[in-house]
Amino acid sequence: MWASLRNIGRNAESGGYRRYAWTGADADCRLWFRMQAEARGLDCEVDRNGNQWAWLGDPLAGDAVVTGSHLDSVPDGGAFDGPLGVVSSFAALDELRHRGVEFNRPLAITNFGDEEGARFGLACVGSRLAAGQLTVEAAHRLRDGDGITLPQAMEAAGYDPDAIGPDPGRLARIGAFVELHVEQGRALDLTGDPVGIASAIWPHGRWRFDFRGEANHAGTTRLADRRDPMLTYAETVLAARREAELAGALATFGKIAVEPNGVNAIPSLVRGWLDSRAADQGTLDTVVAGIERAAREHAERAGIDLDVVRESFTPVVEFEHALRDELGALLKGSDLRDTGRDVPVLGTGAGHDAGILSASVPTAMLFVRNPTGISHSPAEYAAEDDCVAGVIALADVLEGLACR
Amino acid sequence: MWASLRNIGRNAESGGYRRYAWTGADADCRLWFRMQAEARGLDCEVDRNGNQWAWLGDPLAGDAVVTGSHLDSVPDGGAFDGPLGVVSSFAALDELRHRGVEFNRPLAITNFGDEEGARFGLACVGSRLAAGQLTVEAAHRLRDGDGITLPQAMEAAGYDPDAIGPDPGRLARIGAFVELHVEQGRALDLTGDPVGIASAIWPHGRWRFDFRGEANHAGTTRLADRRDPMLTYAETVLAARREAELAGALATFGKIAVEPNGVNAIPSLVRGWLDSRAADQGTLDTVVAGIERAAREHAERAGIDLDVVRESFTPVVEFEHALRDELGALLKGSDLRDTGRDVPVLGTGAGHDAGILSASVPTAMLFVRNPTGISHSPAEYAAEDDCVAGVIALADVLEGLACR
Repeated sequence: MWASLRNIGRNAESGGYRRYAWTGADADCRLWFRMQAEARGLDCEVDRNGNQWAWLGDPLAGDAVVTGSHLDSVPDGGAFDGPLGVVSSFAALDELRHRGVEFNRPLAITNFGDEEGARFGLACVGSRLAAGQLTVEAAHRLRDGDGITLPQAMEAAGYDPDAIGPDPGRLARIGAFVELHVEQGRALDLTGDPVGIASAIWPHGRWRFDFRGEANHAGTTRLADRRDPMLTYAETVLAARREAELAGALATFGKIAVEPNGVNAIPSLVRGWLDSRAADQGTLDTVVAGIERAAREHAERAGIDLDVVRESFTPVVEFEHALRDELGALLKGSDLRDTGRDVPVLGTGAGHDAGILSASVPTAMLFVRNPTGISHSPAEYAAEDDCVAGVIALADVLEGLACR
Repeated sequence: MWASLRNIGRNAESGGYRRYAWTGADADCRLWFRMQAEARGLDCEVDRNGNQWAWLGDPLAGDAVVTGSHLDSVPDGGAFDGPLGVVSSFAALDELRHRGVEFNRPLAITNFGDEEGARFGLACVGSRLAAGQLTVEAAHRLRDGDGITLPQAMEAAGYDPDAIGPDPGRLARIGAFVELHVEQGRALDLTGDPVGIASAIWPHGRWRFDFRGEANHAGTTRLADRRDPMLTYAETVLAARREAELAGALATFGKIAVEPNGVNAIPSLVRGWLDSRAADQGTLDTVVAGIERAAREHAERAGIDLDVVRESFTPVVEFEHALRDELGALLKGSDLRDTGRDVPVLGTGAGHDAGILSASVPTAMLFVRNPTGISHSPAEYAAEDDCVAGVIALADVLEGLACR
């Protein structure tokens, strides 16, 4: 199953994945999902927001147990972020059938659309729309780097952009959603556990910093006459690191767009995107305010105009304690925990569809150990033994929830 | 004449020009040139390297007086850099015919191809090839940002890429080359003169800095576990400014390419291009060595791999003193200089086709005042009176060289 997914949307040069929403690679991933579902006799459907669902049992009966993740990727992403959760869901179903259990609740496996936001700049578009956390108007305004709007992209992929919108009835029929995901840090590696349970997702957001100066010839303009926004950008990048270090938080400038971006032209515009996250809201506010203050001070001194726009924001997500404790109890009794120790419970800085859905549905997450902590990179990795442990853990959880 | 050129290759949004070599906008500029030549009864030809020549008199007679410049632009360039020299050449010919002078040497007006190097990253490709300063093999290896090679681009534009190469016979038939250009600094504005004569072009070059770190998830990777090349790039941008200030030179990072360039991804690669120039070779060497040393120190501390590649370099160009002095004498006697003062002689940090040709041909340059010093920007500007003064000065020079 893993092998059949491995080459979809893979860039031969980087070895990384480029599976962006509503592209050909995305369509291939969706076809792969449908084929996996049909091979297992599941009923496959696509909801109004382009999320895929593979059902065992009656979708309309209610109190369904749902598991799954996403198949899209960041630019040059790894093989595990997203796909591990989908592949493990199908494998867990295979395991449960092998165990010969009977299902007394409907079960569904999902593939949420556009989780990474790599193309349109907003993460979790499929789950946000379903949960009513993104309006249809705002979604219709999303544009990719080539100026193609989300509706245009959906239409080109054969979907109806006018159908998108909140889907409360569908969410109300879900009794529990469990997403398995490769860990994106090294917490499990440090505790020595193959599998963990999520406690919370840190609050996080994206801010766009537009530094505007004056385009000019790099070979003839005296330093004193320049208004070079690259210098202010550079000061801000270093300030972000300092503020994050001081607060024990995270702050990253990983994306930049420069105009005119010519070797011998002083830029007129440097646009940098800040990603920042912290364990609590107060710390995050302090970090971002500190970065913006430093940017404004440097901008003023250099004659640079600065606009700061918050492009997206997700408050802290605490996963439901009852479901989390139920998972802990189920896994403590499983073969995995012959040590008798509790399964570790850990927070994470990464956003997930599970975080979006947790506002509407009892939701939990399982993490699989990432020995290097590397994520969003072709070097992202999880050991085969740990992936198998993840499948067994997910099967144990699904059996506990849906078969007793 | 100016009006008919104004809208070619102009971007409606920025107001800047995007006239890149071998594109549709470039073809339009070339057609405009041919129409101007034909309207004046000049014989138009394209040499083996794609440079345009409009002849009055026998191209093979030798000892020709040649004037002209280029029509291509940097990304979002201004209206004057290049085109002012070509438009002024045709206008100066009109002025000389109005004066009723007789030409006793062949005269040509030129449009050199790909002066800015905006598409393939190397400036003055047309004149470099003609002067044997760029080998055919190296030219054939040039690639634009989309991976299109120079030969492919030339073929797509209807030119024969196998014909390119040194053109010593053509250059040997030139007795003097004079290029008029808008000044790209404020020296004439500070002295209060509409027109000046070039003394020298500063040595200048482009260096590519490749900072390689490790791609990772911006939301989950601890600061201590990161190898983020954006931080080292930022330190290097600031070091470049410091080194240039210390030495009274110029250093600019105006172009950047980041991989994967995702909002929530720590970059694996930040590639920055340094443009640096100084009045003499020793100063330039000191500045670039200082920047590279600072970059290596920061890279080592942050676990970043750094490659520095010199992509192009042009040593100092001293324009021929005899021709320069002849221009000074011609202009001192002209109507322009009723003050009796000498025409100012000034150096420049910008490269020009005249700088390339000066190794093979007696060459001089005229500069027209730029009241703001702004260049390579839609805000680039020269006053109409000063442009007219430039045409008169060029006509005086051409009359002195070709008609006495």
